[in-house]
Amino acid sequence: MLTFDTRPDRYQHWKLAVDGPVATLSMDVREDGGLSPGYKLKLNSYDLGVDIELADAIQRIRFEHPEVHAVVIASLKERIFCAGANIMMLRESSHGWKVNFCKFTNETRLAIEDASAHSGIKFLAALNGICAGGGYELALACDEIYLVDDGNSAVSLPEAPLLGVLPGTGGLTRVVDKRHVRRDIADFFSTLVEGVKGKRAVEWKLVDKVFPTSQFREAVAKRAKELAAMSDRPATGPGITLNALNPTVTENEITYSAVTLALHRDRRTADLTVHAPSGPQPATPEEIVRAGDQFWALRAFRELDDALLRLRINEPEIGTVVVRTEGDRDAVLAIDRALVANIDHWLVREIVHFMKRTLKRFDLTARSFFALIEPGSAFAGSLLELALASDRSYMLRDDPGNGVENVVAVSPMNSGPLTMSNGLTRLQTRFLEDSEQVATVLAHEGPINAAEAEQLGLVTFAPDEIDWDDEVRLAIEARAAFSPDAMTGLEANLRFAGPETMETKIFGRLTAWQNWIFQRPNAVGDKGALKVYGQQGRPEFDWKRT
Amino acid sequence: MLTFDTRPDRYQHWKLAVDGPVATLSMDVREDGGLSPGYKLKLNSYDLGVDIELADAIQRIRFEHPEVHAVVIASLKERIFCAGANIMMLRESSHGWKVNFCKFTNETRLAIEDASAHSGIKFLAALNGICAGGGYELALACDEIYLVDDGNSAVSLPEAPLLGVLPGTGGLTRVVDKRHVRRDIADFFSTLVEGVKGKRAVEWKLVDKVFPTSQFREAVAKRAKELAAMSDRPATGPGITLNALNPTVTENEITYSAVTLALHRDRRTADLTVHAPSGPQPATPEEIVRAGDQFWALRAFRELDDALLRLRINEPEIGTVVVRTEGDRDAVLAIDRALVANIDHWLVREIVHFMKRTLKRFDLTARSFFALIEPGSAFAGSLLELALASDRSYMLRDDPGNGVENVVAVSPMNSGPLTMSNGLTRLQTRFLEDSEQVATVLAHEGPINAAEAEQLGLVTFAPDEIDWDDEVRLAIEARAAFSPDAMTGLEANLRFAGPETMETKIFGRLTAWQNWIFQRPNAVGDKGALKVYGQQGRPEFDWKRT
Repeated sequence: MLTFDTRPDRYQHWKLAVDGPVATLSMDVREDGGLSPGYKLKLNSYDLGVDIELADAIQRIRFEHPEVHAVVIASLKERIFCAGANIMMLRESSHGWKVNFCKFTNETRLAIEDASAHSGIKFLAALNGICAGGGYELALACDEIYLVDDGNSAVSLPEAPLLGVLPGTGGLTRVVDKRHVRRDIADFFSTLVEGVKGKRAVEWKLVDKVFPTSQFREAVAKRAKELAAMSDRPATGPGITLNALNPTVTENEITYSAVTLALHRDRRTADLTVHAPSGPQPATPEEIVRAGDQFWALRAFRELDDALLRLRINEPEIGTVVVRTEGDRDAVLAIDRALVANIDHWLVREIVHFMKRTLKRFDLTARSFFALIEPGSAFAGSLLELALASDRSYMLRDDPGNGVENVVAVSPMNSGPLTMSNGLTRLQTRFLEDSEQVATVLAHEGPINAAEAEQLGLVTFAPDEIDWDDEVRLAIEARAAFSPDAMTGLEANLRFAGPETMETKIFGRLTAWQNWIFQRPNAVGDKGALKVYGQQGRPEFDWKRT
Repeated sequence: MLTFDTRPDRYQHWKLAVDGPVATLSMDVREDGGLSPGYKLKLNSYDLGVDIELADAIQRIRFEHPEVHAVVIASLKERIFCAGANIMMLRESSHGWKVNFCKFTNETRLAIEDASAHSGIKFLAALNGICAGGGYELALACDEIYLVDDGNSAVSLPEAPLLGVLPGTGGLTRVVDKRHVRRDIADFFSTLVEGVKGKRAVEWKLVDKVFPTSQFREAVAKRAKELAAMSDRPATGPGITLNALNPTVTENEITYSAVTLALHRDRRTADLTVHAPSGPQPATPEEIVRAGDQFWALRAFRELDDALLRLRINEPEIGTVVVRTEGDRDAVLAIDRALVANIDHWLVREIVHFMKRTLKRFDLTARSFFALIEPGSAFAGSLLELALASDRSYMLRDDPGNGVENVVAVSPMNSGPLTMSNGLTRLQTRFLEDSEQVATVLAHEGPINAAEAEQLGLVTFAPDEIDWDDEVRLAIEARAAFSPDAMTGLEANLRFAGPETMETKIFGRLTAWQNWIFQRPNAVGDKGALKVYGQQGRPEFDWKRT
């Protein structure tokens, strides 16, 4: 079973060096360090294992090194930056693995851009040599790209001409939408196996600057310092340490401190439960720093993130996830207030953006989520986002005379910090172009019972105790029986109402087309381009355009 | 060979009745009138042939009936509005046919919305009975939806639960993005085979109003008149007649009056040439009305539209299209000026929006387009859009001393009227977030030679006479040799830089996911849901979520 847990002293493929305000994250992929023995990771090509380390490194720089204000992404291999995703790995992977691999690498690159946009960390790609395919897509995720001008080193997106697939890790989207490469030039570039080098790469906006070998290192160092100088992060640490989550893993359950994922493989469902904290919570930046990675907001969302990743990769047949929360609603609301009040503090900011990214991971997880809001639940503020992110929510309408009523609650965390990929909050997406309704919901102080929640449009259904069991059970059973592909497509469309951003374009438009191509015989059939690459013989295509 | 030419007196499946400002377009599908004998078009289900008539009717209302200000889309079948795309047809169709069928039906529904947004024609869907799948998607394209409340009639999107595919003709996108149905309700609705009826359909925003059977007809008539009253179209006709195009079709060429499509099937390429008009052109609305469908701007673009449609459906293996223009550049510019000067005239407005829709059809055609700009060409103004819409353009840099120079030119038609699906002009998309460059190009008066065009970024390459032949030939040969699927995916991403709209979401996000599903064994395998529907046995799914 694959896990996503690592740390710098266990990295096989990256070296993280911190030198004052500048960190250098150097790729040095171990050829025999692949997740499967079936391929060699030559020329700094990568598989999911390499990207798990990259994601970990970016995350740790944010939390553990507040003194780092700029990151140079570099390579320790001479004249090679990165050859992209390993082709042999792609060739031997199942459709589902390819799709999940691409999704995770996309999320990692978006995390780089998120750190640049929100955390005061700028990224400089230092391309010391060949930079192809996914290697160039990694560079595209950086703020700036410097390329060595040695007459040989080039950037390229050779996926389409060489392999019959797309540069699907954001490459096509970023060239035109981020770097504003003209669409016709992007078209030419994306069909050019050998890529583009030197001045032409600058002219075409593919890289920002080129330097002769003799000046390259110095130019990179100089620019990294300039980028670092723009940051609003603290001048010095310490940061906090992200310790391993160490969940208890049994055959059918993963149990973390605040999250439980129980698997019912026979029914193809899972129960995902998030436990609210109890007792007094840190309320000031100092207390939050002191709590470190044990602060509930960080700990619970790290666990949730990990649970989602394990679910995606290790449990492909679990199609429907029942989402619950339990515990002290008021403690969640108190934490939310503390987070919003101190959002300018570097660590609080990091925690909130991490919560945001975890919820985005939820939005992008190709499983049906049904939130069940039952007595004792804690769907309040940032945990209410789990219900809003779910495809449906069911809230038990209990008898108010019957002791403690079943309620949800909103907090300032529902009004802005936890935006979706489309740039809107989940409430804005829910009440699209009805900002009045969003305001009405946000103005609601105190607990909201089932009747009110249904009236406000916060939950899908609010059955009473007589109907609850059957209605919920039948809904989950029915969901789990539908075509998994149809549900994936349905959710990928309905979850992202409203505007599109570069981010949603990558996951909607680019990824959807890539997935289609990954399913086509022209790529993955016996004579498909991805299958025959590097073998004897040339691909044979069905020439029909579709 | 399928053609797209029809007219009301030849319709098999629709009745068009014009009564003053209100037209009623009634669906009455002939069961044995399908394009293939392999299925019966029961319950007003449809195939491409039915939709070709619908597209024709919408078009004719715009051009031939300026006095029509509102259209009721209705059914002549009792208690049945429309059962959606014919499932047996989908089942027996190839992947390419399904994709092309969906693309055309999407374009037709967008043409309805285009008429509503720009032509002063409002559409009212009058649902007198069962309205399922594509039937409801047709209703969603209308401005308003009225549903009979007879205890039985419901709207539904049963594609996912019944067939394991998506409501891919804009259904998923329109419920959340156009009608602002809440995403969780849309999720529930889209998995409900029986659909939603009566008051609940209104509450959930799925329809606008319901009426008992006894009041339905009257309510529809009343509302249609109200909608008609909002129009800015002329109170009376006459319109102009859209005569058949009657191209000369030989084995390897389709020749229209102003457009030629020459097929080179052995090379998998085609030459598409648009001929500019010659001599004096109509300059006033009166002259344009008098010229009618023989006015070059309308005639040439109708022919271009027809050529693109025939290419898509009849020539799937032609992957690369070389686009040329020839003739009197100044005549095109004169027409452009006349169009822009008189855009408030109903017919001029219709012509310009038709040109716009044809260019959108070009953008959405899954073939590579290379524009070749050679001496004698007429890439000026609205015809320059063909070069801007192409994936690349090559402009011959000839010797200025050598007689007439090879040039292009801009006109006011490049500055706004011919927007792409993304809401931007092709120049704005080309120079994304560089409005200064757009302004510089538009400010350029007079002819632009190859060196200037390259400098301005209007063309991709400007080889001289020594390089021209080889460079162009090799580029076309190379393009035609790439994986057709990779090129489709590449173009679907690079052509639509910038913002997304409901329209681009339908073609990018929704269609891409639908195409993926149309390729998946869970839908189209021997035990897939689409294959076994209506047969003995239930579908068998690979349960892996992707």
